[in-house]
Amino acid sequence: MAVYTEIGDDELRDFTALYDIGAVLSCKGIAEGVENSNYLLTTEQGNFILTLYEKRVAPADLPFFIALMDHLAHHEVACPTPVRARDGEALRELCGRPAAIVTFLNGMWPRRIEPYHCAGVGRALAQLHLAGESFRMVRPNDLSVDGWRRLFLACGERADEVQPNLAEELLNELEYLAGVWPRDLPRGVIHADLFPDNVFFRDRDLSGLIDFYFACTDFLAYDIAICLNAWCFEPDLSFNVTKAKLLVESYRGVRPLGVDEIAALPLLARGSALRFLLTRLYDWLNQMEGALVRPKDPTEYIRKLRFHRAIQGPAGYGIDR
Amino acid sequence: MAVYTEIGDDELRDFTALYDIGAVLSCKGIAEGVENSNYLLTTEQGNFILTLYEKRVAPADLPFFIALMDHLAHHEVACPTPVRARDGEALRELCGRPAAIVTFLNGMWPRRIEPYHCAGVGRALAQLHLAGESFRMVRPNDLSVDGWRRLFLACGERADEVQPNLAEELLNELEYLAGVWPRDLPRGVIHADLFPDNVFFRDRDLSGLIDFYFACTDFLAYDIAICLNAWCFEPDLSFNVTKAKLLVESYRGVRPLGVDEIAALPLLARGSALRFLLTRLYDWLNQMEGALVRPKDPTEYIRKLRFHRAIQGPAGYGIDR
Repeated sequence: MAVYTEIGDDELRDFTALYDIGAVLSCKGIAEGVENSNYLLTTEQGNFILTLYEKRVAPADLPFFIALMDHLAHHEVACPTPVRARDGEALRELCGRPAAIVTFLNGMWPRRIEPYHCAGVGRALAQLHLAGESFRMVRPNDLSVDGWRRLFLACGERADEVQPNLAEELLNELEYLAGVWPRDLPRGVIHADLFPDNVFFRDRDLSGLIDFYFACTDFLAYDIAICLNAWCFEPDLSFNVTKAKLLVESYRGVRPLGVDEIAALPLLARGSALRFLLTRLYDWLNQMEGALVRPKDPTEYIRKLRFHRAIQGPAGYGIDR
Repeated sequence: MAVYTEIGDDELRDFTALYDIGAVLSCKGIAEGVENSNYLLTTEQGNFILTLYEKRVAPADLPFFIALMDHLAHHEVACPTPVRARDGEALRELCGRPAAIVTFLNGMWPRRIEPYHCAGVGRALAQLHLAGESFRMVRPNDLSVDGWRRLFLACGERADEVQPNLAEELLNELEYLAGVWPRDLPRGVIHADLFPDNVFFRDRDLSGLIDFYFACTDFLAYDIAICLNAWCFEPDLSFNVTKAKLLVESYRGVRPLGVDEIAALPLLARGSALRFLLTRLYDWLNQMEGALVRPKDPTEYIRKLRFHRAIQGPAGYGIDR
């Protein structure tokens, strides 16, 4: 929940005048999205989303994200389409920050996850991966093994403030994963942050995916592992095998999975749990005085990590080879 | 900036099904409004605002606020119109809280106040006061003299934590105002909180007033005094006589002011400054751990109060009798 930047009247008028979107009727900050400032922009032509990219997004990465959304939207993935100004540019500057207008997606993200949500996410994720095959830009995943090491060096020492002996557990996990992390799984463009608040539904139908600002090039199956963490644990952190099975089977209905990808899932899920654990730990230990965003609890991911460490292969997710 | 309540998918569907507003396409929390949870609700029929009333608004007062908006909207005041459900009720319950859907107003509140904004506000305020003449419900102003005394008793002792000797200054001001506060000025329904973020403009034209949740029955001129505080000080807290003159003259162009009302303005402005000083002081000294709202700085209103105390009658605002 965050709006970081207040847009002045004149600035907004001058900015939107560059686009063929009609006169602005309203512009309201949205209390969603932690990384950027998002506004619901209503013009004579309807609703749009205006995003100002704040410090967490590297400006050098923005052309990748914008081009990716553009590519996916034109390859039948329901996602926001960047709106080009009259000069053809979709990425501009507003209030001293990079800024873009994208199309508005109908739908709402699910607050209580039902099995049909998991089926929808599995299908959409596979469609995203297939559509990404023809996308030529590359962006390394800076939150894979090397990134975890950097995060651990930046905050791991203080992990015991959150839970006794957590620092040691994290270091052991990091070293283990660094040694066995896969090298040869199918790669492509992944969303890398497909949590429920980034997936919209209308009734039972998935209506769109948003927030591509962690998208990168990595193992496609790693995206599935992220979804297992994000969608298949109940609020009490018990793992719901029915949801996991539906998610993976629905994915396979669109894009078949190799034996190597399925076999790697528990490892990838451990890595993904470690990734979110480390970023949440970092945010938790580096809370800014007066910040309007409440950092997410890192302990949730300690428990998820331990679950993946304990299972006996992909059968633990209810998945057949 | 606040969304306090997360609305579940099922709850929202069941709630909106009671209205003839079409299927819900989207519902996003708005990062504006400190007192309540506000959502921009997009349906097949367009945009609406859904408000959940949080703890600061007394449920017993809601029928007054809803009826007032309804009355004003039907008397040519540009303000949100409460939308009635099929059973005729505009005030319902959602997520255990009182809730209402109101029409969406185009326009944006001005971030940088120009003189023409002040002229627009003066006119709109007078129109509101005239339209309120035929509104029959009454709500005492619980933030007038007695309310200031309660607030001072609740937090005045600790005022020196904000500025040395502030407690004594506040007590003296309170006792002075209690002794000389007017009794016989023209009364009616007032907005009582017409700050810039509650007034929308489209280009140079005022397009609507929002947030009637402090509205009450009090001296009409007190509403002008609130606007002098809210609209006529520059960011450096110098008083802009040009803006004040425009605001009051534009008001008088719609509703003439009595000699007694004009003469009382400096006193009413002192009272209004004390009112916002005390509520901000209270919020400042009672910040909740982990709250997502940053309380407003009370010291701004110490300086405004002192300005009004120092001027020589309404001429200090550039106003002719």
